[in-house]
Amino acid sequence: MDILIKNGIVLTIDSQMRRIDNGYVAVKDGQIVEIGSSKDLAITQAKEVIDAKGGIIMPGLINSHTHASMTLFRGIADDLPLMDWLNNHIFPAESKLTPHWVYTGAKLACAEMILSGTTCFCDMYLFEDEVAKAAYESSMRAVVGEVLYDFPSPCYGQIEQGFEYVAAMIQKWGGKSNSLITVAVEPHSTYLCEPKLIQRAAEIAHKNSTPLIIHVAETLSESAQINERYGVTPVKYLADIGVLGSNLVACHSVHLTESDMELYKTFDVKVAHCPESNMKLASGVAPIPRMIEKEICVGLGTDGCASNNDLDMFLEMDTAAKLHKVFTMNPEALNAQTAIKMATINSARALGLDSITGTLEVGKKADIIVVNTSALHMIPMYNPYSHLVYSTTGNDVVVSIINGKIVMKDRKLLTIDIDSLSADVREIAELISK
Amino acid sequence: MDILIKNGIVLTIDSQMRRIDNGYVAVKDGQIVEIGSSKDLAITQAKEVIDAKGGIIMPGLINSHTHASMTLFRGIADDLPLMDWLNNHIFPAESKLTPHWVYTGAKLACAEMILSGTTCFCDMYLFEDEVAKAAYESSMRAVVGEVLYDFPSPCYGQIEQGFEYVAAMIQKWGGKSNSLITVAVEPHSTYLCEPKLIQRAAEIAHKNSTPLIIHVAETLSESAQINERYGVTPVKYLADIGVLGSNLVACHSVHLTESDMELYKTFDVKVAHCPESNMKLASGVAPIPRMIEKEICVGLGTDGCASNNDLDMFLEMDTAAKLHKVFTMNPEALNAQTAIKMATINSARALGLDSITGTLEVGKKADIIVVNTSALHMIPMYNPYSHLVYSTTGNDVVVSIINGKIVMKDRKLLTIDIDSLSADVREIAELISK
Repeated sequence: MDILIKNGIVLTIDSQMRRIDNGYVAVKDGQIVEIGSSKDLAITQAKEVIDAKGGIIMPGLINSHTHASMTLFRGIADDLPLMDWLNNHIFPAESKLTPHWVYTGAKLACAEMILSGTTCFCDMYLFEDEVAKAAYESSMRAVVGEVLYDFPSPCYGQIEQGFEYVAAMIQKWGGKSNSLITVAVEPHSTYLCEPKLIQRAAEIAHKNSTPLIIHVAETLSESAQINERYGVTPVKYLADIGVLGSNLVACHSVHLTESDMELYKTFDVKVAHCPESNMKLASGVAPIPRMIEKEICVGLGTDGCASNNDLDMFLEMDTAAKLHKVFTMNPEALNAQTAIKMATINSARALGLDSITGTLEVGKKADIIVVNTSALHMIPMYNPYSHLVYSTTGNDVVVSIINGKIVMKDRKLLTIDIDSLSADVREIAELISK
Repeated sequence: MDILIKNGIVLTIDSQMRRIDNGYVAVKDGQIVEIGSSKDLAITQAKEVIDAKGGIIMPGLINSHTHASMTLFRGIADDLPLMDWLNNHIFPAESKLTPHWVYTGAKLACAEMILSGTTCFCDMYLFEDEVAKAAYESSMRAVVGEVLYDFPSPCYGQIEQGFEYVAAMIQKWGGKSNSLITVAVEPHSTYLCEPKLIQRAAEIAHKNSTPLIIHVAETLSESAQINERYGVTPVKYLADIGVLGSNLVACHSVHLTESDMELYKTFDVKVAHCPESNMKLASGVAPIPRMIEKEICVGLGTDGCASNNDLDMFLEMDTAAKLHKVFTMNPEALNAQTAIKMATINSARALGLDSITGTLEVGKKADIIVVNTSALHMIPMYNPYSHLVYSTTGNDVVVSIINGKIVMKDRKLLTIDIDSLSADVREIAELISK
């Protein structure tokens, strides 16, 4: 056996939501090969034995929407109207972007995500090949996609070259066996992309069996703009141009009508919900409980660090659960188990990765974390699901395993050199500040 | 000099919101005696020298409303309608309360608060003398008050004995010079206390120059109940019975009318805002930005651990700032500096402690924390205020000083024995589970 994790509360987050107190999980050749109760444990030897010390053994969290490299802009501007924030702070900072910056920012994001229990993320940004490289080197699972839009990009120039950039990324990252990296196709939004661009992106995604990822109905002004331009909602517009489908990840989806949600349901569109970003930018509150009622698949994401300003999915679960309770005035809305499913198997499903990750099940890739439950803010513990959502922070994660490789143990990163990374980040931040 | 903290970004959170990069703070006889820039530092000797290593030196956070001992019920029941939660889970658990349980739960709360940067808290519960004892032994600053209501209490029995209990607590804790403990008078609410009880409580508070603390307008059903009984809002009712005043801390204050807020303004009533609890119980969203416009003093609190489920004031600031942005659809609402003031000086003012704590100023008691800013989720740093609200968690606090005494250093508690505390908590939790 390669890895044996024992002496913990195993939460599978599979369809049966199994809980095995004093359980174990065994890993071989990157896969989960056994899950059981310690009293039945017959494995006598493993290359690495991890004692969970009574903590929680669970699937790694999956961040279904972020812009990893924006860690470089963490806290550069807050508490501002969206257009002021974008035009006077984010866009000027991004105008200086280089591949090295994107790589470094993504590495920082990978480090922060691994340390807070995230084992897989879905990214959209510029120079995205650098994000793929950073994730691959960090041994993180990632869905990556170059952002595509009508105007010239600092990365690829004109859109024709944008599609060439995407093709090259698919060529480069698509072929590896047992690969961590999935290349998606990612037109920015309905308001920054003309119909033809989105349709062409959808075709490429379809041909390569990969997700099509787009921001949808994030703000009221976006909805107004699309209504003015096309006379319909952003979702109806996407339906009209024929790109709704089960591989579409509609990020944000804040301002939806009942008909929009019915379209999502009909076409099995997936949603990446980013409550903290939507709150901080005052975008609005997505009708998540209603979507869940309709059995639409909703994953959870942090969005980028300029609008959050961290990548901690445990805090995101907490906020999601509380926000929808107060917004619907229903304390039963979005319970702890639902929040955890959103951050694991639903995100996996949204990204088309549910056959390989998102739960603890024999045969799946070993994307596993261990959460320490002995810290003072975690005792006593009556219900581990409750603690994961309402009391845990990313800092309580003590082991992180991705694709069968231990990438963090006892809060020490094993695939990333923190000191040189921190130095690089500080150097870039000084240039950004200038 | 007793303590010298140097090599940090000093944020005073006083009226000038001074920021001293590479600054220092010096402490003697429990008080702040010097604040300055390291280049002017003339102190050559101190009993204890603390290197802030570039982190943030700031006033300790003040939790303006909690029920400390309810840490024992952390996660015992979530995601339930309020009455189910109260009647079938919290009240049955509380019916078993003993002084030892209250003491142990409060000690656990003190430990969690110190570790997350809180140096002072305001408490309401049963057997409150035990909370005072736990806080005093932990060297925490606390405002404590036995909960008073019409029906018999498991602690004191009939209300007459309740007032005797309060008098005894004032006698016991009031006299100490340099005391950490303030005894407040705390009728539970307008719906659980008849007018005479509240009026008598107000008189005692007035006579002893101590806060009068009460839950006000927490839920819609409370407002409906008071309207049915008295034909007015809870706030107007409190005005009618003559108890509004500058020593009144109106906890929650979720469902307020414009007239209610005008009454608060006129009588200088203070508010303890508990956004996470209000969200989790689906109570509603308090009109905090409107109160701030009216210059009403709003402090911040976590409420008890059964409805939060932690005592981390950094997370509470983050949630407060984000919640009011999305609820008012205004990204400029409740900015980072405002959130920090709420959690420090405004909470101090609410509790009548602003002359001794809540800011870093020469002459104030030394209630000081140091926040590490070198963790990966804290870099880069363009704006320390932003990081404190949007990126920091309590776990980033590395030093905590209360009343000039170092109570936590390098995440190690110096006034509380964690091992015996954890064992006591687990023993009680087993009895609660039965």
